[in-house]
Amino acid sequence: MAGNSFGDLFRITTFGESHGAAIGVILDGCPSNITIDEAFIQSELDKRRPGQSKITTQRKESDTAQLLSGVFEGKSTGTPIAIVIPNEDQRSKDYSHISDKFRPSHADYTYQMKYGIRDYRGGGRSSARETAARVAAGAIAKLFLKQQGIEIFAHVSGVGSITSPNLDTADLARLLELREDNIVRCADPATATEMITYIDGIRKAGDTVGGRISTVIRNLPVGLGEPVFDKLHADLAKAMMGINAVHGFEYGSGFEGSKYKGSEHNDIFSKEGTKTITRTNYSGGIQGGISNGMDVTFNVAFKPVATIMRDQPTLNEAGEETVISGKGRHDPCVVPRAVIIVEAMAALVIADHLLKYNAYLNVKK
Amino acid sequence: MAGNSFGDLFRITTFGESHGAAIGVILDGCPSNITIDEAFIQSELDKRRPGQSKITTQRKESDTAQLLSGVFEGKSTGTPIAIVIPNEDQRSKDYSHISDKFRPSHADYTYQMKYGIRDYRGGGRSSARETAARVAAGAIAKLFLKQQGIEIFAHVSGVGSITSPNLDTADLARLLELREDNIVRCADPATATEMITYIDGIRKAGDTVGGRISTVIRNLPVGLGEPVFDKLHADLAKAMMGINAVHGFEYGSGFEGSKYKGSEHNDIFSKEGTKTITRTNYSGGIQGGISNGMDVTFNVAFKPVATIMRDQPTLNEAGEETVISGKGRHDPCVVPRAVIIVEAMAALVIADHLLKYNAYLNVKK
Amino acid sequence: MAGNSFGDLFRITTFGESHGAAIGVILDGCPSNITIDEAFIQSELDKRRPGQSKITTQRKESDTAQLLSGVFEGKSTGTPIAIVIPNEDQRSKDYSHISDKFRPSHADYTYQMKYGIRDYRGGGRSSARETAARVAAGAIAKLFLKQQGIEIFAHVSGVGSITSPNLDTADLARLLELREDNIVRCADPATATEMITYIDGIRKAGDTVGGRISTVIRNLPVGLGEPVFDKLHADLAKAMMGINAVHGFEYGSGFEGSKYKGSEHNDIFSKEGTKTITRTNYSGGIQGGISNGMDVTFNVAFKPVATIMRDQPTLNEAGEETVISGKGRHDPCVVPRAVIIVEAMAALVIADHLLKYNAYLNVKK
Amino acid sequence: MAGNSFGDLFRITTFGESHGAAIGVILDGCPSNITIDEAFIQSELDKRRPGQSKITTQRKESDTAQLLSGVFEGKSTGTPIAIVIPNEDQRSKDYSHISDKFRPSHADYTYQMKYGIRDYRGGGRSSARETAARVAAGAIAKLFLKQQGIEIFAHVSGVGSITSPNLDTADLARLLELREDNIVRCADPATATEMITYIDGIRKAGDTVGGRISTVIRNLPVGLGEPVFDKLHADLAKAMMGINAVHGFEYGSGFEGSKYKGSEHNDIFSKEGTKTITRTNYSGGIQGGISNGMDVTFNVAFKPVATIMRDQPTLNEAGEETVISGKGRHDPCVVPRAVIIVEAMAALVIADHLLKYNAYLNVKK
Repeated sequence: MAGNSFGDLFRITTFGESHGAAIGVILDGCPSNITIDEAFIQSELDKRRPGQSKITTQRKESDTAQLLSGVFEGKSTGTPIAIVIPNEDQRSKDYSHISDKFRPSHADYTYQMKYGIRDYRGGGRSSARETAARVAAGAIAKLFLKQQGIEIFAHVSGVGSITSPNLDTADLARLLELREDNIVRCADPATATEMITYIDGIRKAGDTVGGRISTVIRNLPVGLGEPVFDKLHADLAKAMMGINAVHGFEYGSGFEGSKYKGSEHNDIFSKEGTKTITRTNYSGGIQGGISNGMDVTFNVAFKPVATIMRDQPTLNEAGEETVISGKGRHDPCVVPRAVIIVEAMAALVIADHLLKYNAYLNVKK
Repeated sequence: MAGNSFGDLFRITTFGESHGAAIGVILDGCPSNITIDEAFIQSELDKRRPGQSKITTQRKESDTAQLLSGVFEGKSTGTPIAIVIPNEDQRSKDYSHISDKFRPSHADYTYQMKYGIRDYRGGGRSSARETAARVAAGAIAKLFLKQQGIEIFAHVSGVGSITSPNLDTADLARLLELREDNIVRCADPATATEMITYIDGIRKAGDTVGGRISTVIRNLPVGLGEPVFDKLHADLAKAMMGINAVHGFEYGSGFEGSKYKGSEHNDIFSKEGTKTITRTNYSGGIQGGISNGMDVTFNVAFKPVATIMRDQPTLNEAGEETVISGKGRHDPCVVPRAVIIVEAMAALVIADHLLKYNAYLNVKK
Repeated sequence: MAGNSFGDLFRITTFGESHGAAIGVILDGCPSNITIDEAFIQSELDKRRPGQSKITTQRKESDTAQLLSGVFEGKSTGTPIAIVIPNEDQRSKDYSHISDKFRPSHADYTYQMKYGIRDYRGGGRSSARETAARVAAGAIAKLFLKQQGIEIFAHVSGVGSITSPNLDTADLARLLELREDNIVRCADPATATEMITYIDGIRKAGDTVGGRISTVIRNLPVGLGEPVFDKLHADLAKAMMGINAVHGFEYGSGFEGSKYKGSEHNDIFSKEGTKTITRTNYSGGIQGGISNGMDVTFNVAFKPVATIMRDQPTLNEAGEETVISGKGRHDPCVVPRAVIIVEAMAALVIADHLLKYNAYLNVKK
Repeated sequence: MAGNSFGDLFRITTFGESHGAAIGVILDGCPSNITIDEAFIQSELDKRRPGQSKITTQRKESDTAQLLSGVFEGKSTGTPIAIVIPNEDQRSKDYSHISDKFRPSHADYTYQMKYGIRDYRGGGRSSARETAARVAAGAIAKLFLKQQGIEIFAHVSGVGSITSPNLDTADLARLLELREDNIVRCADPATATEMITYIDGIRKAGDTVGGRISTVIRNLPVGLGEPVFDKLHADLAKAMMGINAVHGFEYGSGFEGSKYKGSEHNDIFSKEGTKTITRTNYSGGIQGGISNGMDVTFNVAFKPVATIMRDQPTLNEAGEETVISGKGRHDPCVVPRAVIIVEAMAALVIADHLLKYNAYLNVKK
């Protein structure tokens, strides 16, 4: 209820502040006997890690995951998996200049008003640093889903006004290679180059810019998602909107689809061998809130990062006008790192719904 | 977990199929001693009711709410409020032609695959008829919120490619009057006229079209919403995405905001008398997932209704190709009625978060 | 959170006051394609029904269950099953003499203080009448469990100081026949006779008496129950303690077991053919919170009914001393009817845990 | 759902195995600005700690709590409080002799069957070592409740057949001193001496014995507890039954009360100054599931510890008969340490219900 848990059967609870001792997560409900590949968990964290390229924040964190429980001889035991990621490069003194000032479009003001106290260092609990815990747990969700044959792929499809063309998504493994070939994580090389140049300019100007991420989930069984409130896309929406800086979510035809006519938009059922498919996929792989076996597709919009390297007017805790200077380390554009967070949250949603789906498979009738 | 409940402290559970005996809802957690104005509940249901104008389905339902519990001498008692809405105009025979066919872009196929059985009459549980239950419970949420001084207003801001200009939202009561002055429920009269003409043409062509709804929530205390997964906008997103036909959600600057620079997008804090405000509101009244006292604003995108009055190819349960004819009653555009559903779900989210917020107000420190 | 729901995957939410229009329940999460035998549901309600014998309250209620949703052509559809039971013999005027008085050991005082309002007629929401809703939903749980081969049997093992000898539980169907052969629902005929005579005397004296119910659950798979908080016996305890008038719960060796030595109490594992058993069953079929395949056994203690046919001193809402007279209809001893409630709640707990158990069965490893 | 969380608004999730790297807990929903007295947390852990006296297990653990988050400058911030307690004296080799054998009346068999894998060292997740995490979180709950004026006191009221006389509970602080004056934690000195002598003999004989713990909770507001399933005593029952080795729970008059007549058992309301009291307290401070302002009282029964220093026949994982030897460290009687666990779980239940109660206090009416 206090909002730091996500999922029902496959459930995570995260903790930790940006500049406290550590951040971390408990994953409860992971099936037993899943091979827990710690190197994979670490490789996922490395993709979210700060300081990985010139277009991300330069904070230095190794983001080393320590597994404290729930794994025995390399396998999950079915008991809670606790992961702790110590904070290393805390440099708390960087934040003394904002200890009593409310940074614009940050959570300083709302946290102070809600709790009457806040760890002002680097945003404390509201910092996107917390998402490392989600990535670690999401990596385990991915390991679980991979065993079930399910694939998840996200990439940066927009930065500012630069938009990636639609991709041929037939070979997700190949797209993943293309994505990891560049620091902005766009799977279209030409667009990636353009985006990087643009972000680099934004960074040099001390400014930031927003972006979009597009995702494909493949090989879901028909039947994931629960009517009427826990529709698969409703849970994906909640998961995505819970990521820092996200301002929009759409699946299938999305906002553009609201301009269509029904005669243009309906997905016609057809047979492809023994498999039931739809000829188009405006439904984004979900009908009535339930996966229909087609690719699940959705887009997520991120606002520009609020921390900019410029002076801005603001208020302090006493309600007085003041100026806040642009100091500290920051990301000029959050989407290259957020790709991994989007994939992690998607994996957590799917893992949870897959277990709910399984709950009804063995019933004798 | 089976997905028919929404909310934690202020929680609804709905039941019922389109063509069963009745639909309904249990509202658990409503505060006691709230005046339960049954006429208001009915007036809200009337706004969602089918057959209310030429641009809605012609199904005849009085949608009469029966309160079975939780109200004593006109006041809520704090115990569960059960509301039953009998189905009247069931006309089940209308649906015999689709009993074993999967309607395109409907939930027939996914329900059949998930459950191995379905009430095929009018979509059964997947029918938007279920939302009447949400409107009834949402009406009680509105009565509760009104006592706390909170206002919620939604209207149709888009139909197909027709878009309402931005409204001056200073006087929400006046906008509500303007909205209710026309059958499409757009608060801009000129745009409303254009929309109605367009929808009427769509209807005559046996087709359907999508649309958008925009919402404003006013007078929230600072502090509603829980980090990090139960952000206020994340719960609003889940609530909206759970409404039939919704394909997209954005709050504040939304998808457009992802094209902005931080220097353009940051909302600068300022004082307006003793009140802390932001000069702009790209944050949509929510920072770090928590309400900041400014208007909460969001948009919802609806796909075109899948039921069209045309023949379409499809598959039957045996997997054979067949043709489905366009019969039965349908809405050419769902947004005029969905305005009330959006408001209802918004009211339910806010009522739930308000109680969570209250839980921490009386702690002695 | 407001406390009117029970279970996670197999979940009920009840509503209704003793003297309102109706009571009822929504069952969400029932598997699809379960045959819903309405006659069985009614027969269960009949066993809980008032007025069934001289040792129960004489309130006249047919307790007719109306299924409003979730069942299509006699089968569950996987969507919420709503059941409404209208109140018939409301006789509200019987309660005018207590409208502002707090009956001793009832919930009048606590409800008034908690909610600031209460439906004083017959206890309103705190009346045991609400348990009819649980029995109706529990009947469906029983139908589901029967298909999975699971049996549940409860009987009255104590009334006041009269105690049933330990039964041979090898043939639960036979015990059920014996139980239903007498109005006190004790499966030992001689003890039953003694109990009936005793209760009849209590009734004539305008008094009431407490009692105990013993339960056996058979044929559970090994593995039901979740460490560490949702142990199978912890959820059974919560379910039983939630029944009106229950003051105690014990499983396996229970309170008596706390006097034993470990060397006396340990259950030694052994083989019976290919099946693993324990030679004794002090563990009550549960080890580490998880079913071990042996019979699950537990006892429940009920206090004497608080409504007695005598004058008692008390306070009114103004805090003044007054006298309350013993009027209205009441049960001299609640356990003969509560047997069905205990079985219903046990069935709901097991159904819920069985689905949770199933969720992990199909994981590919 | 996987069972490692407890509470709704004030919610803990624990992790860790007996012989893994660490155990720990995340407490989510703790109000902000509570003074977090780390010395108090440690003193509570010290009371549960192994090796504290001759009648407890000799495992050496400092049980040092490390707070990783949620506390800033000595105050809670309202964000999740993570506590890690490293395992020090793991001595895993002690357990090689049981790696493939099922210890009688332990959870070895059920965990192996449920999960197909288990950390066999010292019981892994099923070890009572996990309760240290509950005690740490419970200590914070106590700090919170103390600020609200609420007291919780438990002591050992029974060991084997030795029973403490009823205590005068007027001065709980004095009883706490008396309790801490002896190693068995019985507040009646004469009984304590008898218990200690008895347990010491049991220990020397390589055996174990069960016991009972009695609890008083004082100064609750009227109104804690939710009808109908989340009754205050139902949640206390679940909390207590979730403690390792607990086989029974009763509140107020308990099992003995089931032998009473209503005319003997009813608690008559009366005035004590301006306060409403009941002249007797068979209701155990709870009526209709809701606190009535009187002391909440309950008893918990613990079975004898299953680990005994004797050879016992059993089965191994292959289903073959074998013998298990009594090695390792163990408690001859668990109740002296369990007193702190009972208090911790009681504090967690009350803290959670207090927040739920608060949620409705500020509603404008």
